Amino acid sequence: MIKPKKISGFNELLPEEELIQQYLLKIIKDEFNLNAFLPIETASVETNEVLQAKEGIETKEIYQLTKLSDNTDVKDFSLRFDLTLPLARYVSQNYGQLIFPFKRYQIQKVWRGERPAKGRFREFYQADIDIIGENTLSKTYDAEIVTIINNIFTKFNIGDFNIKVNNRKLQLGLFEELSIPSKEKVKSFSDAIENDIDISKYITDRRDEKTYKSFKLMKRDQIEQSFIELERGKVIKVLDDIDKLSKEKIKENLISLSVSEKDIDILMSFVSLSNNIDDIAAFSKNKTYQEGIFEIKEFINDLSMLGMNLSNLKLDTSIARGLGYYTGMIFETELTDIQEAGSICSGGRYDNLTKDYSKINLPGVGMSIGLSRLISIILDKKIIPLPPQRNADFLILTSLDKEKMINITKEIREMGIPCELSFFNNYKKEIKYALRKNYRFILLSERNSDSFILRDLYEEDRSISDKVMPKEFLLMLLSNQSL
Amino acid sequence: MIKPKKISGFNELLPEEELIQQYLLKIIKDEFNLNAFLPIETASVETNEVLQAKEGIETKEIYQLTKLSDNTDVKDFSLRFDLTLPLARYVSQNYGQLIFPFKRYQIQKVWRGERPAKGRFREFYQADIDIIGENTLSKTYDAEIVTIINNIFTKFNIGDFNIKVNNRKLQLGLFEELSIPSKEKVKSFSDAIENDIDISKYITDRRDEKTYKSFKLMKRDQIEQSFIELERGKVIKVLDDIDKLSKEKIKENLISLSVSEKDIDILMSFVSLSNNIDDIAAFSKNKTYQEGIFEIKEFINDLSMLGMNLSNLKLDTSIARGLGYYTGMIFETELTDIQEAGSICSGGRYDNLTKDYSKINLPGVGMSIGLSRLISIILDKKIIPLPPQRNADFLILTSLDKEKMINITKEIREMGIPCELSFFNNYKKEIKYALRKNYRFILLSERNSDSFILRDLYEEDRSISDKVMPKEFLLMLLSNQSL
Repeated sequence: MIKPKKISGFNELLPEEELIQQYLLKIIKDEFNLNAFLPIETASVETNEVLQAKEGIETKEIYQLTKLSDNTDVKDFSLRFDLTLPLARYVSQNYGQLIFPFKRYQIQKVWRGERPAKGRFREFYQADIDIIGENTLSKTYDAEIVTIINNIFTKFNIGDFNIKVNNRKLQLGLFEELSIPSKEKVKSFSDAIENDIDISKYITDRRDEKTYKSFKLMKRDQIEQSFIELERGKVIKVLDDIDKLSKEKIKENLISLSVSEKDIDILMSFVSLSNNIDDIAAFSKNKTYQEGIFEIKEFINDLSMLGMNLSNLKLDTSIARGLGYYTGMIFETELTDIQEAGSICSGGRYDNLTKDYSKINLPGVGMSIGLSRLISIILDKKIIPLPPQRNADFLILTSLDKEKMINITKEIREMGIPCELSFFNNYKKEIKYALRKNYRFILLSERNSDSFILRDLYEEDRSISDKVMPKEFLLMLLSNQSL
Repeated sequence: MIKPKKISGFNELLPEEELIQQYLLKIIKDEFNLNAFLPIETASVETNEVLQAKEGIETKEIYQLTKLSDNTDVKDFSLRFDLTLPLARYVSQNYGQLIFPFKRYQIQKVWRGERPAKGRFREFYQADIDIIGENTLSKTYDAEIVTIINNIFTKFNIGDFNIKVNNRKLQLGLFEELSIPSKEKVKSFSDAIENDIDISKYITDRRDEKTYKSFKLMKRDQIEQSFIELERGKVIKVLDDIDKLSKEKIKENLISLSVSEKDIDILMSFVSLSNNIDDIAAFSKNKTYQEGIFEIKEFINDLSMLGMNLSNLKLDTSIARGLGYYTGMIFETELTDIQEAGSICSGGRYDNLTKDYSKINLPGVGMSIGLSRLISIILDKKIIPLPPQRNADFLILTSLDKEKMINITKEIREMGIPCELSFFNNYKKEIKYALRKNYRFILLSERNSDSFILRDLYEEDRSISDKVMPKEFLLMLLSNQSL
């Protein structure tokens, strides 16, 4: 006999917990459908070549497949770690068969071989939407995405939340203005690449070595441009930790990227700005920065047009979003009362989804809800109380007249009302089962009669009606499904 | 730049194909919910120990996990190959927290490293329900499961289907009556085990060697009983191929299991019996056989009580179901017009779900729909025509008055009616997009007025109404969502 073991990081829910997950999934799906997003599902696996393209996670966190009978038979594909990379691959693969703007939703599990911790899993649900345009894409879609976030979290009804927004162009504008990275650094790096001089001092990330190798095939201006983008991405990654690390640690990390003390002070005052758009606008006259300001104003205007109540929206210059592909509006959502949970829904605008796979220019905007983490917070904090372990409000007892009770069940179900039939063949056992499952309503047969007895087990006297005729009962159900 | 490759056996659908899959999934889920099954999801992986327990598939078809960064870091878990084994493991692991009878549904993907072929995938959806009792479970649940199959396939509306049913006790009764395996074979095998004599001539299956090794720890009567069960399981597996192989090949396979010519003739006339219950009942007086007959009669009686139209039901003695754990009613479903597709939904009654993991006795009955195969048949044979690539009936054009059109969109969506907003900023482009997406209805602004123009692009004159006031339009929508 085998004693099954729990597999660390692969979380499973009890049925009553799964009912909460299904309830949230339904809200999410209904909202995605209402906004005319098309559903897609991608394969659980991607080729290793695709998974190892420029951006993503460390390969030690990716699960590769092999065979149980022969683990040297290693496959050239691995489990996906997010839904954005599969979308990019799917869109470039099916480009000719998709109509743009392509609005898609995708609710699937992803896998990451991280060290499991509270609220951090190796297998978890993501619920993503993205709108992909061909060459251009109206910025009003950014606002549409945020109204969807707002609607979903309002319908979840799990407490107040903030949608924090920022614009990547503000950061990039500052980098331009402050010359981050410095002209000297760009020049000496490019010289080093061109003349095959040791570049190990520029390596601060595991991927750098491989990336820098690819630079050797480029022309001087390409090398410079790519290095600038890479360095700025690193600064953004450091700034992204502003909620998690101390100010001292952030400064230290910026110094190690050779940002000057003066520039660090400017960056730190930027991320500390209030949420007043005029204050933020006044911080820099840089052209890219001011484009970001214009986009934020347009975005807020679009949100108003879309009828969104702006009280949940918070302009926040400290929002950075680690991923390099964002180019415009970026957003993060947090529960006001459970800020330690961090961002449970985030996204943003990007200039080109498929640049790793094709020459077509496909700008987009999207967001992702970290559903499994949200569920784990909801269960942990008991934000939604656990329902009873049943998936219906009605239990039909058959012990007193099996045929009569089974017949009425068919009619109830044909009305679309879920109910469970119980076959204990013993009245006492059936009542015990109804109580154990915390059933609200039980329907039983009145002996030697056509009528039924309907009881409300949540009420003291436990009786709604001692005698209901089948037709009466069905009409009652129709007029008010939960009575 | 990377050119993404298709991964063989990991099928992906286009959005319009996925809409068909979502339509079928909704029918399935609604029916499961209506019958008060509780949803569960299990982890994608099981420990290798659990996956290699007695019954299942070959280990060469199981995908084990390793790490992309280091493929010698092989995990002790692998992807699941069905949903029954995970259910058994889940139920024995959570036994104390579940209320029995436990009715669960589970719609998830499973993985098998088979050679891909038309309609055979390496990743595919299964939609399973099972009802698990504690010590006992009313047989009326068998009928409830079959009414659910009947309802689902009726609602699919993809043509006529047959639910073919049989009872495992008929086969087992015949084996008893005919002494399959023969007393001599049982005796000589048990002698060989006890005296450590070469048993290679009894090996006809890859797993036998390992299984027989475990017999060495057993007492004589246990050895005999286990060997009898194993041999009968092999005969059932041979009979299960009766639709796929020639009669000659079946006979040959039975001979290799040392079934006598006389007994083969009897088995072959059994599987050729008509679907008349009296003819079947008259075939053998064996007690187990007659118990099977009684169960079939009771089952049909229960189906009538549950109000099922029996015209889709077909008694069929050739139904064997390969898996050894079935002990009572067994069922298979096939599409009448596409018999080459084989069984797309099957299941049955079993005496004990968790015998590999615990001493608790948990009888059950269940069924599984092979959804991915069904979708592939439906798409291949165009049984359900492909819908347009859109997830709404309404397109709202904004080029003529963005603010007004966005405002009405909010109201339409608040009524629960899906619609898409288009932002081409150019009337001609918007119309082109509407036609390309094959939109039925477009709503646009009438210039310098509060009213709207609603057009039906499927009608010749293309105009439902040249002037609709917002309120009128919303009322129209409410009274008939698809107009």
